[in-house]
Amino acid sequence: MPIQFIRSSLFASPTNLLRTLFRVTKLRSLAMGSYTASSQSSKLFFRQLFEKESSTYTYLLADVSHPDKPALLIDPVDKTVDRDLSLVKELGLKLIYALNTHVHADHITGTGLIKTKSPGVKSIISKASGSKADILVEPGDKVSFGDLFLEVRATPGHTSGCVTYVTGDGPDQPQPRMAFTGDALLIRGCGRTDFQGGSSLQLYKSVHSQIFTLPKDTLIYPAHDYKGFSVSTVEEEMLYNPRLTKNQETFKGIMENLNLAYPKMMGIAVPANMVCGLQDTTS
Amino acid sequence: MPIQFIRSSLFASPTNLLRTLFRVTKLRSLAMGSYTASSQSSKLFFRQLFEKESSTYTYLLADVSHPDKPALLIDPVDKTVDRDLSLVKELGLKLIYALNTHVHADHITGTGLIKTKSPGVKSIISKASGSKADILVEPGDKVSFGDLFLEVRATPGHTSGCVTYVTGDGPDQPQPRMAFTGDALLIRGCGRTDFQGGSSLQLYKSVHSQIFTLPKDTLIYPAHDYKGFSVSTVEEEMLYNPRLTKNQETFKGIMENLNLAYPKMMGIAVPANMVCGLQDTTS
Repeated sequence: MPIQFIRSSLFASPTNLLRTLFRVTKLRSLAMGSYTASSQSSKLFFRQLFEKESSTYTYLLADVSHPDKPALLIDPVDKTVDRDLSLVKELGLKLIYALNTHVHADHITGTGLIKTKSPGVKSIISKASGSKADILVEPGDKVSFGDLFLEVRATPGHTSGCVTYVTGDGPDQPQPRMAFTGDALLIRGCGRTDFQGGSSLQLYKSVHSQIFTLPKDTLIYPAHDYKGFSVSTVEEEMLYNPRLTKNQETFKGIMENLNLAYPKMMGIAVPANMVCGLQDTTS
Repeated sequence: MPIQFIRSSLFASPTNLLRTLFRVTKLRSLAMGSYTASSQSSKLFFRQLFEKESSTYTYLLADVSHPDKPALLIDPVDKTVDRDLSLVKELGLKLIYALNTHVHADHITGTGLIKTKSPGVKSIISKASGSKADILVEPGDKVSFGDLFLEVRATPGHTSGCVTYVTGDGPDQPQPRMAFTGDALLIRGCGRTDFQGGSSLQLYKSVHSQIFTLPKDTLIYPAHDYKGFSVSTVEEEMLYNPRLTKNQETFKGIMENLNLAYPKMMGIAVPANMVCGLQDTTS
């Protein structure tokens, strides 16, 4: 899969252009209040999945209007790969990508197992992560699945290579938009910034410039939640996030005094995740 | 709160009738495929919340087009009441009801604490449960919040008083419909039937007659999930539920041979839940 493919816009291929121009679009652009906690278009299939031990959310997205029903998984976990692949199969989806928002320190990514069990799938992570993967993405890149796409936004600070994947901005893309923020922005919280190239000032700038500038009704889907929240919105976090509503200096002070324990899985998870599971499938 | 109120139809009050007839409705009736995993109207606010210890889902619904933003909670848990009430407050909603789908054996309902902390809220459970609550509902009753409502369907079998709450059927109600199935139907599973008046044959009939007869794209929101699934659809469960796709006799055999341990919390939870927390607020 050449890197150009995912860098291309929705309209770059002549076939796509024709399909987009002449298709009777089924998407209704809803005037949604910021309260509504679900995004939809007539073509996006979306499912939120949870791994209880590490409190990790995995997201399954697919373009079900496309004949192939191409699908992708964001932040899959090794322990729940069978569940995820079984669901993909039952729903008749074709998994094409397994993406990570960053190099996780608390669990092992499922991408290695997924590639073993479903060899056509390509792994994706940011170039800035310094990791290995089939495709290394950079800010502004698009990850296309059918006629839908995710936009890559750089949101470093928790790690130096963190990205947020945001559903496309366009008349034929889901409304409201959905931001898969990894550990950059959590619901009423954020990822720690004390290792893996973390920087509280960088995180503050990332969230304010790359996430809080999205439309207020954009749905926030984080990589983790520890309190049982499933989703939030840009507006909610701009109003109620107890850390990121503070000024930059106060935020820095909060992050420097969290006194968190070292993640139990870090010694195992980070080396494994730096190669996105490719140690199992390449030699 | 007289029982007549919640038995009344959407149009029963003259004010509601006028509001409904003359309001420019914002709801778009989407031609949704059964794959789409979220329901929406321009007026429904919806949030799924999770209590990790008992793997219980609590659901927050509100009519945010109504000036009061009336809201209800389905199956709140005592341990997460503060989280839920804090969210309700942040969002500017007015909590009016706390509903239980049944008398839970694995956790203590949050209704008692909610009524203590937010005295205007009324508790709701089925009359068939034999429990105490402010309002006892029967099959066919409607639980109205603003211009939205939930329909009560009897789905006994896990307990003799289990009900499923289903969002309304009508042009101004959410599409696709949403079924809060309690422990009657779980995602790729169902509640046990070996105590509390449980009956596998009754559960089989309940699910097939009351849930599987709903439109195929109806979203299934259960009281629990132990594998990290958040939602399913009627169509998915009719195709892939490993128990309820079997015939009645096979289902009975499966349910009789589960060999499940007695729930740890049962001795404490059931007596507390039989009075829906009213022991704390009435004398």
